[in-house]
Amino acid sequence: MELLVRYLDRSNSICSVSTQDIIKEDTLRDDLKYYFMSPCEKYRARGQKPWKLVVQILKIVMITTQLILFGLNNQLVVSYKEENMMALKNLFLKDYSGVDEDDYSVAVYNQQQVYDSLFFVLDQYSQLGRLSVGPISYAEDEEGKLLPLILCKEYYKRGTLDPSDEAFDIDSELETVCMSHDPKTANQWKTQNSSFFDLDFYRLVDIRATFQLKGINLQTVRSRELPDCYSFYVTITFDNQCHSGKVKIFLDIDVQSCACRDWKISGTAQKNTHYLLVFDAFVILVCLTSAVLCTRSIVLAVRLLQRFSRVFHENYNHKVCENDQKEFLNGWYVLVIVSDLLAIVGSILKMEIQAKSLTSYDVCSIFLGTSTLLVWAGVIRYLEYFQKYNVLILTMTAAFPKVLRFCCCAGMIYLGYTFCGWIVLGPYHEKSFQKNGFPLTDLQKFLREQKDVPVSEESSQTDVHVQNSAFCCCRRVPEGDDVVLIS
Amino acid sequence: MELLVRYLDRSNSICSVSTQDIIKEDTLRDDLKYYFMSPCEKYRARGQKPWKLVVQILKIVMITTQLILFGLNNQLVVSYKEENMMALKNLFLKDYSGVDEDDYSVAVYNQQQVYDSLFFVLDQYSQLGRLSVGPISYAEDEEGKLLPLILCKEYYKRGTLDPSDEAFDIDSELETVCMSHDPKTANQWKTQNSSFFDLDFYRLVDIRATFQLKGINLQTVRSRELPDCYSFYVTITFDNQCHSGKVKIFLDIDVQSCACRDWKISGTAQKNTHYLLVFDAFVILVCLTSAVLCTRSIVLAVRLLQRFSRVFHENYNHKVCENDQKEFLNGWYVLVIVSDLLAIVGSILKMEIQAKSLTSYDVCSIFLGTSTLLVWAGVIRYLEYFQKYNVLILTMTAAFPKVLRFCCCAGMIYLGYTFCGWIVLGPYHEKSFQKNGFPLTDLQKFLREQKDVPVSEESSQTDVHVQNSAFCCCRRVPEGDDVVLIS
Amino acid sequence: MELLVRYLDRSNSICSVSTQDIIKEDTLRDDLKYYFMSPCEKYRARGQKPWKLVVQILKIVMITTQLILFGLNNQLVVSYKEENMMALKNLFLKDYSGVDEDDYSVAVYNQQQVYDSLFFVLDQYSQLGRLSVGPISYAEDEEGKLLPLILCKEYYKRGTLDPSDEAFDIDSELETVCMSHDPKTANQWKTQNSSFFDLDFYRLVDIRATFQLKGINLQTVRSRELPDCYSFYVTITFDNQCHSGKVKIFLDIDVQSCACRDWKISGTAQKNTHYLLVFDAFVILVCLTSAVLCTRSIVLAVRLLQRFSRVFHENYNHKVCENDQKEFLNGWYVLVIVSDLLAIVGSILKMEIQAKSLTSYDVCSIFLGTSTLLVWAGVIRYLEYFQKYNVLILTMTAAFPKVLRFCCCAGMIYLGYTFCGWIVLGPYHEKSFQKNGFPLTDLQKFLREQKDVPVSEESSQTDVHVQNSAFCCCRRVPEGDDVVLIS
Amino acid sequence: MELLVRYLDRSNSICSVSTQDIIKEDTLRDDLKYYFMSPCEKYRARGQKPWKLVVQILKIVMITTQLILFGLNNQLVVSYKEENMMALKNLFLKDYSGVDEDDYSVAVYNQQQVYDSLFFVLDQYSQLGRLSVGPISYAEDEEGKLLPLILCKEYYKRGTLDPSDEAFDIDSELETVCMSHDPKTANQWKTQNSSFFDLDFYRLVDIRATFQLKGINLQTVRSRELPDCYSFYVTITFDNQCHSGKVKIFLDIDVQSCACRDWKISGTAQKNTHYLLVFDAFVILVCLTSAVLCTRSIVLAVRLLQRFSRVFHENYNHKVCENDQKEFLNGWYVLVIVSDLLAIVGSILKMEIQAKSLTSYDVCSIFLGTSTLLVWAGVIRYLEYFQKYNVLILTMTAAFPKVLRFCCCAGMIYLGYTFCGWIVLGPYHEKSFQKNGFPLTDLQKFLREQKDVPVSEESSQTDVHVQNSAFCCCRRVPEGDDVVLIS
Repeated sequence: MELLVRYLDRSNSICSVSTQDIIKEDTLRDDLKYYFMSPCEKYRARGQKPWKLVVQILKIVMITTQLILFGLNNQLVVSYKEENMMALKNLFLKDYSGVDEDDYSVAVYNQQQVYDSLFFVLDQYSQLGRLSVGPISYAEDEEGKLLPLILCKEYYKRGTLDPSDEAFDIDSELETVCMSHDPKTANQWKTQNSSFFDLDFYRLVDIRATFQLKGINLQTVRSRELPDCYSFYVTITFDNQCHSGKVKIFLDIDVQSCACRDWKISGTAQKNTHYLLVFDAFVILVCLTSAVLCTRSIVLAVRLLQRFSRVFHENYNHKVCENDQKEFLNGWYVLVIVSDLLAIVGSILKMEIQAKSLTSYDVCSIFLGTSTLLVWAGVIRYLEYFQKYNVLILTMTAAFPKVLRFCCCAGMIYLGYTFCGWIVLGPYHEKSFQKNGFPLTDLQKFLREQKDVPVSEESSQTDVHVQNSAFCCCRRVPEGDDVVLIS
Repeated sequence: MELLVRYLDRSNSICSVSTQDIIKEDTLRDDLKYYFMSPCEKYRARGQKPWKLVVQILKIVMITTQLILFGLNNQLVVSYKEENMMALKNLFLKDYSGVDEDDYSVAVYNQQQVYDSLFFVLDQYSQLGRLSVGPISYAEDEEGKLLPLILCKEYYKRGTLDPSDEAFDIDSELETVCMSHDPKTANQWKTQNSSFFDLDFYRLVDIRATFQLKGINLQTVRSRELPDCYSFYVTITFDNQCHSGKVKIFLDIDVQSCACRDWKISGTAQKNTHYLLVFDAFVILVCLTSAVLCTRSIVLAVRLLQRFSRVFHENYNHKVCENDQKEFLNGWYVLVIVSDLLAIVGSILKMEIQAKSLTSYDVCSIFLGTSTLLVWAGVIRYLEYFQKYNVLILTMTAAFPKVLRFCCCAGMIYLGYTFCGWIVLGPYHEKSFQKNGFPLTDLQKFLREQKDVPVSEESSQTDVHVQNSAFCCCRRVPEGDDVVLIS
Repeated sequence: MELLVRYLDRSNSICSVSTQDIIKEDTLRDDLKYYFMSPCEKYRARGQKPWKLVVQILKIVMITTQLILFGLNNQLVVSYKEENMMALKNLFLKDYSGVDEDDYSVAVYNQQQVYDSLFFVLDQYSQLGRLSVGPISYAEDEEGKLLPLILCKEYYKRGTLDPSDEAFDIDSELETVCMSHDPKTANQWKTQNSSFFDLDFYRLVDIRATFQLKGINLQTVRSRELPDCYSFYVTITFDNQCHSGKVKIFLDIDVQSCACRDWKISGTAQKNTHYLLVFDAFVILVCLTSAVLCTRSIVLAVRLLQRFSRVFHENYNHKVCENDQKEFLNGWYVLVIVSDLLAIVGSILKMEIQAKSLTSYDVCSIFLGTSTLLVWAGVIRYLEYFQKYNVLILTMTAAFPKVLRFCCCAGMIYLGYTFCGWIVLGPYHEKSFQKNGFPLTDLQKFLREQKDVPVSEESSQTDVHVQNSAFCCCRRVPEGDDVVLIS
Repeated sequence: MELLVRYLDRSNSICSVSTQDIIKEDTLRDDLKYYFMSPCEKYRARGQKPWKLVVQILKIVMITTQLILFGLNNQLVVSYKEENMMALKNLFLKDYSGVDEDDYSVAVYNQQQVYDSLFFVLDQYSQLGRLSVGPISYAEDEEGKLLPLILCKEYYKRGTLDPSDEAFDIDSELETVCMSHDPKTANQWKTQNSSFFDLDFYRLVDIRATFQLKGINLQTVRSRELPDCYSFYVTITFDNQCHSGKVKIFLDIDVQSCACRDWKISGTAQKNTHYLLVFDAFVILVCLTSAVLCTRSIVLAVRLLQRFSRVFHENYNHKVCENDQKEFLNGWYVLVIVSDLLAIVGSILKMEIQAKSLTSYDVCSIFLGTSTLLVWAGVIRYLEYFQKYNVLILTMTAAFPKVLRFCCCAGMIYLGYTFCGWIVLGPYHEKSFQKNGFPLTDLQKFLREQKDVPVSEESSQTDVHVQNSAFCCCRRVPEGDDVVLIS
C-alpha cells in the first residue's frame, strides 16, 4: 500500500526517464488515481455519471420490496400450517390445554387415561367430517378409496417383570403389531379388536396412530392467488419407552403442499400475479446489470494491475508486493456479484412458486434472504467514502481480531465450565439446562427420531396400504419389521 | 462567536475613534454583555428582577398540577372503557378465560363449539338486562324502538371443495347474508331461522354479530362531575377466513362518549368544577404572560443584533458572521413560546371537556402532554447557568452526532439482518417475531381491517336499521354488498 | 489540612522559641500524630491495645446474630399472617384461583355471580367451625356472646337510570343499609331478609361484609415460645363504584396480635427464652461499651483541638481554619454511636416482645435493621487504614457529586417524559404503567381508602354491636351514616 | 526473575572465570534457556518432538468424549427418577395441577379437602397395579410378603383451645399414632379405623403416609445396557404445623438404585458395553502417560534449579531469590497432574458403574466433571505461547486483585444492606425474597427436616414392619416415640 501511495505521489521527483515513458507513466498514474476515487470524486474529475451507485440504490429498494412481498406470502403459508397443527391437536388430543407441556403435547399417568386418549383419537377421527371447521378430509388413494388409519403398537417380544422381586426376564427385541381400518367405522374397532386394545403396559414401548388428511388453503383466494392443496401426514405417538409411569403423547405433522389436481375458480381477475411476475423480471434485470457492471470493474482492475506491475517492473525493477495487489481486488465488487447471483436465483424460484410449478418456499427464502442481507451490508461500503464513518469502520476492523482472540480464550474456559456444569449440576436442574438450549433435548429428539428411522426404512417393503399412499406427494407410512397385520 | 467575544473584550485597545462613537460603542458593548448574562448576573448588574424565571417556575408547577388532575380524570374514563370491554367479553364470549389468547379472544376448533359460541352470544344478548351488573342497556332509535342485533354471515358465493380429490370449484366473490332481530326475542331465532344457522363451513368466511349498547359512567358523580353517556358499538366476529380449522373469535368495541340528553342530579354542589375552571384560566394567563415576555426578549435580541451589525459594519467594515447571528436567537425562547401555545390550546380544550361540550380526551392529552414535556426539558436551560452542568451538556451535545453516526451504521447492518432473519428464520418461529414487535401482526390486522372497509363504506346505502342508528353519536352499522335481509 | 500537615512536619525548622514552649509543642505534636494514627500504628507506637476495634468486631458478630434470630422469629409471625390470609380467601371467595387477579382478588361480571359470591360468604361463615383447618373461631364480646357478621350495602339514595334514553335522575348522596346477624344462623338470612338481598345494581355502590375472627398461633410452641393470640378483622368488599359491569371482590384483613388472656402450657422448659434474654442483655452491654469508648474519643479529640488551636494562636497568631477543625471530628465515631443507640433501643424492644409485653415487631425491625446496616457500613472505616482501599474510597467520594449532578439533569428530562408519556400514552397501555409502579394504583387505593374513612370515623357513634367489639385489641367496625339497621 | 534474565543474558560480560567453569556455566545457561522455551522453540532448537502437547490434545478429546457419553447415560437415569416423581405426584395427590405450588405440591384449606386428599392416597395406593403405567409395584419383604403402608398422625398430647376466649391449655409434647396395613385392603381402613380418621385439627401437627415401591428402569435395555432396579421410598406429608388454616401437602421421594437380583435378558449382544470398557481403559492409559510425563518435567525442573542455585552460589555468592525459584515450579504441570488423577479415579468409577457393581453416579460425575474443567482450563496454558494472548492473560492476572478488592468493599455494604432489607422490608414482601434465593426457604426446609430427624432416629427401635424393610437397599421407616400401633 505504502509503495503504491509513494508511487502515486512521486510524480515530481523523477527526471531521469525518457519522455515517452514519462507520458506512459503519467497516464498510468492518472488511471490509478482515478481508480481509487469515490463515485463523487470520479464525477468531479472526469464527469462520469455514477451508474453503478444508481443501480445499487435501485437494487436495494427493489430487492427489499420483493423480499417483503414474498415474506408476507410465506407468512400466510406458515400460519396456515401452524393453525392446522393447533386445530388437529385440539381435535385429536384429549384434555389438550392449548399449549404443549414440554416437547410433548400431553402427558398421562394412569392406564385409564391412556385408553381414554387412545379411543378419543379413534372416535374423533371417525367423525372428522362433522367436527372440523376447516376444509379438511380423509385422503383417498388413486382409486378413490379412503386411506385407512394405521394403529401400531410396539412392545418387547417377551417379558415378565416382577419389580417386587427385583426380577425380570425380557427379550430386548421389539415386536410391532399394526391394525389398519377404514376411517368411517372406527367406532366398531374397540369391540372387534378387543385383544389388540388389551395393552400390557409392562412390555409396551409405544403406540402410534398414523393417518393422512388432505386440505385446501382457501385463504390465498382472497389475495388473488390460486389455492394450494396440502397433505397432512399425522402421527400420534403414545410414548412409553421410558417406562417411568408417564406416557407422553406427541402429535407430529408433516405437511406437504402441492398444486391441486382439478380446479375451477371464477370471479377473480388474476392481474395481480401478472404484475408480480413483471416486477420479478425487472428485479432480475437490475441484478444482471449490476453484476455485469461489477464484473467489468473487476476486469478493468485486473488489467490496470497488469499495466502497473509491468511499468513498475520495467522502470524500477521491483515486483509489486502482495498487499498492493490486494488493493486492486475490490472485495465489495465480489460481494455485490455474489448477492446479485443469489437474488437472480431467488427471483426465478419465486416466479416458479407463483406459477405453482414449485412449492419450495424454504429454498427460495434462503436465496432471497441472503441476497438482501448482503445488499444491505454492501451499503456500508458507500459509507466508507465519508471520512468520519471511515474512521469508525477502520477502528472496528482493527479491533476485530483482538475481540475474537479474547472470545476464543474465554470460550475455552466456558466450554470446560459447560461440560463440567452439565455433568455435575445438570441432572439435578435438568429443566434449566434444557431451557438454556443445551443440546440435550435435541439429542433426545434425535434418539427418538433414530427409532423412527429403521421403521421408515423398512417401509420400502411392499404392502397393501403402503402402495395406496404412493400418489400426489408420496411419503412413508411407518411400519415395523415384525409387523402382524390385523384387519 | 469568537469575533463577538473579542469585540466584547476589546474595550481598551481602541483609541482612534471619535468620542461619540466610543460612547455609542460602549453602550452597545454594555447592552451586549448584559444580554448574554444569566438572570443572577443581570440582577447583580442592573438590579433587574428575574420575572421570566419566576414565571417559568410558576408555569412548571401549574402545568404539572393541571396535567396530573387531567390525567387522573382521563384515567377514570379509560378504566371505565376497559372494564366495560372486559365485562362484555365475559358476558358474550363462551369459555372466555379472562385473558385474550392472542390478538383474538377465544379460538374454537370444532363445529359444535362454533354453534355453541354463536348461540351463547344470542342468548346472553337477549337476557342482557338480567345479566349485566352495570348501568348498560340496549340502544334505542329516535322513536324509542330498540335497535336490533344484526347477524351477518359472509361466504364464497358458490363453492364445492373436495380435499380428498384435491379438487375445488369456487367463486371468489363473497356474499353476505344478514339477519336483524329485536333483542328481546333472540331465543326464538334459532328455531325460526334454522336455515340461516345451517352453516356451510367449507364456504364460510366469517360471521359477524353487531349491536349497540348504551351506558352511563356514574363513577364521575362521586368525584363531583357530571356523568357521561356512552355508546358501545360491539362487533363479535367469528373469523374463518384462514380456513385452517381454527375459528378465531374477536370482540371489538368502539366506544363513543357524549353528553347525556336528559339528566337531573341532586345532592352535590358542583363547586369543585368551578374551582377547576378558575385554575385552568389562571394557567392560561401564566402561559400568556410567559409567551409575551419571551416574545419581547426575542424582539429585543433582534434589535440588538441590528444595532450591533450596524456598528460593526460602520466601524470595522465587517459583516457579522452567521454563527454570531445565531448566538442572538435564543432557541430556548422559541421552545418556551411553543410550549406556552400548546399549553394554552390544551387548557382551553380541557375547559371545554369539563363543561361537557367536548369529549376529545385524546387531542387534549397530546397538547397538554407535549407542553409539559417541553416545559420540563426547558428546565435544563437554567442548569446551563451553572458552570459544571454546562460542561455536562456541552459534552453531550458534542458526542451526539458521533453516537448518531454509529447508530446509523449499525442500523444498516441490523436492517439487512432483520429482513434476512424474518424471511429465512421467521416463519418457523413466528411467535417470537410477533412478540418482538415486527410489523406482521399489524399488517395482519390491517388486512383484516381492510376487509371491513368495503363493508362499512357500503353502509352509506340506505336501509331501515341503518337510519335508525343515526342519532346521538352516529356510526356505521356494517352491511355487505350482496345483503339478503331476513327479518 | 495542609496547615496541619505542615505543622506536624515543621519540627526542625523552628528555633526561635523558648525551651518550655518547644517541649509543650513537641508533646502536642506527638499527641496529634498519635491521634491520627491507625489502631495498628498506635499499638506499635505506644503499645496501646486496640480495644475499640475488638469491641466493634464483637459488636458486628453479636448484632448480626441477634438480627438473624429476630428475623427468623419475625418470619414465622409474618408467614402465619400470610397463610391465614390465603386460607380466608380460599374459604370465603367463590372461585378463588389462588392468586389475586389484580389488586382485587376476584372479579364477577353478572348478577347471578354476585348473588352466588355473596351467599357463599354467608354460608361459609355460618359453618366456619366445620370448615377451617386452623385454630380459628368467631370472636366473642366480653359477655361471651358471639360477635355478629355485619353486612352493609351502600347505594345512591335515589336514582333512576335509563341508558337507552341517555337519561338519568340521581341523588349523589350515598345511603348505607346494614344488617347484623348471629354467625350460626346465617343460613336463614337469605329467606328472612329477601328485601335486603334484592339488589338494585343501577344504584348499588358497594356491599361490605365485616366480621371478626380469633386465632391462636400455635406454631411458636414448637420453637419453645409462648403462643400469641390474634384478632382478624376481615372485610369482604363487593366494589361496584365504577358501574362498569365488573364487580371487584376484595378481601382485606387487619391482623392484630396480643398476648392470650388465659393460658396453660406444659411439657416445655422455657430455657431457650432465658438464654435469649441473657444474650440480648449482653448485646446491650457491648453496645454501651462501644458508645462510651467512642464518646471518650470524641471528647479527647475536642480537648486536643482546643489545645492545638490555643498553641497555634499563641505561637503563630493564626486561627485554625475550619477544614482543619473538621479533621478532628471523626464522622465514623458519630456513626458508631448512632448505631449503638439504635441497637440498644432495638434490643430492649426485642426483650419486651419476647416477654410478650409488646407485639410491635415492625418498630423493633426498623431499629435493629438500621443499626445492623450502620454497623456493617462502619466496617468500611477500617478498610480505610489499608492504603489501596483508601484510594478506592477516595475516588468514589470524589466521583459522587458528579454522578449525582448527572442523575439530577437526566432526572429532569425523565420527569417531563414520564408526565408526558403517562398522559399521552398511559391510558391506552394502562396495565404496563401500573406494572411499572406509577402511582396510579396507589392513588386508586387511596381513593378507595378515603371512602372508608368517613365510615370508620362515624363508628364513634355508639351502637350495640360497636360496643361489643370494644375489648382486647379494640378496633373500628365500619358503619354508615344513614344506617338503617335490620336485625 | 530479573536476576534470572540478567543471568541468561550476561554471557559476554564475564571474563574472569576459569575455562571449565565457563563451559559448565554455558551448558547450564543453554539448559535454562531450553527449559523456558515453548514446545515449538524446543522443536526448532533441539528437534525434540512435543510429546507432552500431543498427549494433552489427545487427552482433551478423549476425556470430553467420555464425559459426554457418561452424561447422556446419567441424564437417562435422572430423567427416569424425575418422571417417576411426576407420575407418583399425579397418582397420589388429588387435584395436583402438574406444577408444585411452592416448595409444597398442593395446599388445602378445609377439613373436607384434607379427608378427601387423605382417602385419595389410600384408594390410589390400594389399586396401584390397575393405575400405574410403568413397571412399578409394592415392595416385598424377604419372605415375599407385601410391605405395608404406614400412616402416622402426630398431634399435641393434650390440648383444648378456645380462640374466642383467647384461652388455651396445651401440652407441647407431641404424640404419634401409627397404623400399618396391607396395601390391597386399604379400602376397608376407613370403615375399620374410623376413630383414627377422626382428626382433631386443633391438635393435629401432621399426617404422614409412608410406603415403599419397587421399579425397574427398562429404558436402558434399548441402549443395550442392563436395566437397574429402583426402590422408591415415598412419604406424603400433610403439614399442619403452622396451624394457619392451610394444610400443605408434600410428596417426597427417596430413590435408591441397585442391581436387580434375578434377571434374564435375551436378544441383545452386549458388545457396546465392552467397547466402552476398552475406551475407558484407554483413557486411563493416556492420563497415566500424561501424569508421568508431567512428573518427569517437574523432577527435571527441580534438578535444574538445584544446579542453577549451586552455580549461582559458587560463582556469585548470591542466593537465588524466592521469585526466581518459583519460576522453576510450573503450576500448569501440577494442574495437569491433578486433572489426570481425577480423570483416572473417575474412569475407574465409571467402569464399575457400567459393570453394575456401583451405582454412585454423583461421585463419578464430580470426578469426571472436575477433571474435564481442569483439562479445558489447561488449554489456556498453550495460548500463553502466543505473544498476543499472553498480554491478555497477564493483564487479566494483574487486574484480578483490584477487582477482588473492590468486590470485597462493595460486598461489605451489600451484606449490611441485605440484612437490613431482610429484616425491615423482607417480611412484607416475603415471596420476592424467597425468589431471590435468600436462605429462608432452605432454613424452613431445614426446620422441617429437623423435625424428621428424631423420628427417624427412633426408628432404631425394633418393630415388626421396620425389620421387614431391612433388605436390598435398607432405609428408615419413620416412627414416633409415643407410637400407638393399631393394626
